[in-house]
Amino acid sequence: MGKKRVMLPAKDVDLSSIKYEREVVQAPHLTGFVFRLFVRILELPLIGPMIINVLKKQNKIDKILQHTVIPEEPMFKPEYPPQETEPGVVVLEEDGRPEDRVVSALKCLPHYDAAEFLENSHASFRYWKIRDYAHAYRSRKVTPSLVAEHIISIIEENGGNKPPIPLLISFVAEEVREQAAASTQRFEAGNPLSILDGIFMAIKDDIDCYPHPSKGASTWMHEVRTVKKDAVCVSRLRSCGVIFVGKANMHELGMGTTGNNPNYGTARNPHAPDRYTGGSSSGPAAIVASGICSAALGTDGGGSIRIPSSLCGVVGLKTTYGRTSMEGSLCDSGTVEIIGPIASSVEDVMLVYAAMLGASPANRISLRPSPPCLPTLSSNDHSNALGFLRIGKYTPWFNDVHSTEISDKCEDALNLLSKEHGCEIIEIVIPELLEMRTAHVVSIGSECLCSLNPDCEDGKGVKLAYDTRTSLALFRSFTAADYVAAQCIRRRNMYYHMEIFKKVDVIVTPTTGMTAPRIPPSALKSGETDMQTTANLMQFVVPANLLGLPAISVPVGYDKEGLPIGLQIMGGPWAEATILRVASEVEKLCGETKKKPASYYDVLKAN
Amino acid sequence: MGKKRVMLPAKDVDLSSIKYEREVVQAPHLTGFVFRLFVRILELPLIGPMIINVLKKQNKIDKILQHTVIPEEPMFKPEYPPQETEPGVVVLEEDGRPEDRVVSALKCLPHYDAAEFLENSHASFRYWKIRDYAHAYRSRKVTPSLVAEHIISIIEENGGNKPPIPLLISFVAEEVREQAAASTQRFEAGNPLSILDGIFMAIKDDIDCYPHPSKGASTWMHEVRTVKKDAVCVSRLRSCGVIFVGKANMHELGMGTTGNNPNYGTARNPHAPDRYTGGSSSGPAAIVASGICSAALGTDGGGSIRIPSSLCGVVGLKTTYGRTSMEGSLCDSGTVEIIGPIASSVEDVMLVYAAMLGASPANRISLRPSPPCLPTLSSNDHSNALGFLRIGKYTPWFNDVHSTEISDKCEDALNLLSKEHGCEIIEIVIPELLEMRTAHVVSIGSECLCSLNPDCEDGKGVKLAYDTRTSLALFRSFTAADYVAAQCIRRRNMYYHMEIFKKVDVIVTPTTGMTAPRIPPSALKSGETDMQTTANLMQFVVPANLLGLPAISVPVGYDKEGLPIGLQIMGGPWAEATILRVASEVEKLCGETKKKPASYYDVLKAN
Repeated sequence: MGKKRVMLPAKDVDLSSIKYEREVVQAPHLTGFVFRLFVRILELPLIGPMIINVLKKQNKIDKILQHTVIPEEPMFKPEYPPQETEPGVVVLEEDGRPEDRVVSALKCLPHYDAAEFLENSHASFRYWKIRDYAHAYRSRKVTPSLVAEHIISIIEENGGNKPPIPLLISFVAEEVREQAAASTQRFEAGNPLSILDGIFMAIKDDIDCYPHPSKGASTWMHEVRTVKKDAVCVSRLRSCGVIFVGKANMHELGMGTTGNNPNYGTARNPHAPDRYTGGSSSGPAAIVASGICSAALGTDGGGSIRIPSSLCGVVGLKTTYGRTSMEGSLCDSGTVEIIGPIASSVEDVMLVYAAMLGASPANRISLRPSPPCLPTLSSNDHSNALGFLRIGKYTPWFNDVHSTEISDKCEDALNLLSKEHGCEIIEIVIPELLEMRTAHVVSIGSECLCSLNPDCEDGKGVKLAYDTRTSLALFRSFTAADYVAAQCIRRRNMYYHMEIFKKVDVIVTPTTGMTAPRIPPSALKSGETDMQTTANLMQFVVPANLLGLPAISVPVGYDKEGLPIGLQIMGGPWAEATILRVASEVEKLCGETKKKPASYYDVLKAN
Repeated sequence: MGKKRVMLPAKDVDLSSIKYEREVVQAPHLTGFVFRLFVRILELPLIGPMIINVLKKQNKIDKILQHTVIPEEPMFKPEYPPQETEPGVVVLEEDGRPEDRVVSALKCLPHYDAAEFLENSHASFRYWKIRDYAHAYRSRKVTPSLVAEHIISIIEENGGNKPPIPLLISFVAEEVREQAAASTQRFEAGNPLSILDGIFMAIKDDIDCYPHPSKGASTWMHEVRTVKKDAVCVSRLRSCGVIFVGKANMHELGMGTTGNNPNYGTARNPHAPDRYTGGSSSGPAAIVASGICSAALGTDGGGSIRIPSSLCGVVGLKTTYGRTSMEGSLCDSGTVEIIGPIASSVEDVMLVYAAMLGASPANRISLRPSPPCLPTLSSNDHSNALGFLRIGKYTPWFNDVHSTEISDKCEDALNLLSKEHGCEIIEIVIPELLEMRTAHVVSIGSECLCSLNPDCEDGKGVKLAYDTRTSLALFRSFTAADYVAAQCIRRRNMYYHMEIFKKVDVIVTPTTGMTAPRIPPSALKSGETDMQTTANLMQFVVPANLLGLPAISVPVGYDKEGLPIGLQIMGGPWAEATILRVASEVEKLCGETKKKPASYYDVLKAN
């Protein structure tokens, strides 16, 4: 009795009365034997669900989902009002050839000055970009085959298929050589397929890249699901001449934010090998940050591209839900996941994004995406490039981070934007952050469990990592009515955000609430459960997933331990061009002092 | 182990290899004390869920939802490819005034011959139609106020607010008089609002009709949800001059198919007072069949319009999902429910439908309905009206009825259509009927539970009828992953149906697998659980709900006990015009031998 809470319709809520509430996470941090025992108890009938229920009550999950009258009807997938295209963009042909889109993307970039990078020595470190490789190939300074040999030797030096820093979990040297030889031959014949020809990329292990298996970094997924061809995104990149080095490590089945993986080893942060990369796209972010690959594809259902990009100091783009095809990925039927690019610079993200994008035919009908666009970026005249920009900032949320170094660095970036470009910083209020987190975990968890259920019932469940099993125990406790309630929360918060995006062009936050966390040595063998770290890492990423909005993480500096800090820029529906433009300016303003990661491999210079 | 079942993608399934499987329902039939005890045990912690799990296993629910790999992604609401409009229809202006749409609808009807009905005595019985009342009002034979007095006296004679045949559960004589007086005045002034002016209608108790409360025929819903204005559908009818007699009885909260209601008494079948009306729109169908009202609005989430229409011998239209606005109804956030009209003839259904239709603004964006259309029906030349028609029939399903009288009568109707109009009857196969039923109950049950949860947790749960509580116990057992799996089943079966609708224009079945079941006297006080009867009644209705397709029930005759039999005609997406045209022809061919219901009140003739 008396537990019932009635929400006002979203349109009647007075946002000025909203008070920011810090999330209080109540759950134990466990590793090792105690953790394994805890998981086995969680999986017992009766007692397991009782423990889960206590944890859910402590974290208000039942209050939000079962005791609250939510007046909105459910919104099962992001639905947006029709959007206007911003000025100063190039529209890409979604149905066209990926190669042609890459040509359009190139035209958006500032003039490329080969001399500037290849000849001069630089005060500050910077990564080799796609156009650096492209120029080197075209000026015959190096061939894809030579680069391939160097990459192969780096990977094999580090332990072949199972290196101590296990960035790749599926790697076949001969297969990489063959792709590189074909690319080299195209350059010799003077017919490279695109600017991406001969560019090395890694693919997260939950996206199909033939002939590799897709295990989702589990021990058994490939036994029940055969890869017969490339995922649509991968095949688009392949048609541009991209060389795939193999399948990158990840948090098992994407169900975690640290990148901890007891099956294949835990990828280490290139900036500090005793720390996590962040996840779940741990391998993709780390292999780019290490300088081995120019770019990688990751998936992002709950920050899985942005979190490791932020922690590893690279750029990661979460596209609008439905913007990229999920065909040929393990998470092809969710309502929050997307596939997106990770690279060391915004311009490389743009080139890869241009090649890989394109909604599936079904989504083209049901979601009606606005046409994909890229911003036009000029080399020098950026005085007015962002004059239009209204930056939304919810300060109490922005500042709710593990260390003020994070919010300070992000604040610095905003101040630079404001000072250099006259961008307006507008204070906004985003209500119901806890409700959104709850709706998100119910959505992604239930959709994930639905696809795993038949195999779990078939005996594969016990072969999963202990932290995956902890998550599944929670997901099993969600009722169908909880799922529907979560979708009502989605509609409410879509309303709030569409209202906010009438007043601002982007919403900025730190990408994560903490920099790369230390790996507890006791967590290497069988993982860990640490909901507080999870909450810190996911502190800012959830709205973009729940509402399908595009968001990008771009590095803005380092904390005093030298760990990268990322700024998250979230845009309105289909507004990838806007956030790429802002990210590019932030990169120019904050990227000068880039640090060379400890594990950086300079694959081009070596030749 | 070994429980896993893998479905082929729908597009790869060979339909010719599908064998029809009869549904085997395994659940006890309980009434009275044993039933009440059973419900209390079901609601116990631990033991209750265990009993539910056994019942679910017996009925293969866990096998379908948890052990099956369903390759399709979820489809949370019906999504259709763009549809072509059929020839020979009138397009209605969805954004226009309801009165104007009624004018368009009138033009679709055959010439009205007043003499034929009012002057001649007839061999066979027929109901007074809307145009009969309209003519009588316009020729000053009678006024709405006079009809109102007659209706009021009938209702009051039968016991006022709580008659032994409780058709209305909210009724205020004075309020009806006022509406009738206003209408009478309009006629006197020569300014009726439309052909519907002065027409008496009843509204199912889950649709708002100001100033009545909306209880959903429960004892408490009105305490937690206040009615401040008409539902959108009701307000459209009101602007056409319709007079609302009150709120019609129903199965509590729509959660049953018989119409049993221990709170307000169980509405009796006008053709046999010892039998059920069917439900959940029990009152709406019975009040029309009794001749008290020309039409009524019902809701249909699992046959709730079609089942009672079939059992009571009237016409009931389930519109395409999203065609009518659900704003102001208790089931405004489901994915299977619609509001639709019930009347004694197809032409009256058309007139009411024309007035009330129109998608909500949100659905106009997300569902993109084809424009609403009506068929043009001529009086005499119907030789070619249906020459185009390809009728799909899945014979083993069609014949899977409680008594062959039902399938025989429906077959006769098809043979007449074929003989008179040259319609082609095409044998089709509809796979996965059991899967669709499962997906349907999970969808409607979970959505319903989600909206009831806060009040149930707040202590209202125990005030519900025992059969509602039985249903809720089942619904509580559905997991969020079950819900997602159900939506994957929805997408598969949408594929099959869209393929079938390339080959046929309509799919025909009996509306119900049985005629009106007897009311066990022991079930009057506290209801009953009888899953076998539920299954018989719902045998054919589910696909139209799960897939959102339009379907109509039209009477085709009687069984040897004199109980009505209905034919269900289901159309493709947004194809209300097609099914109305077919229903109109079926009505002409089969309606000649109509029986006068035992409780028929001839409200017009009496004046």
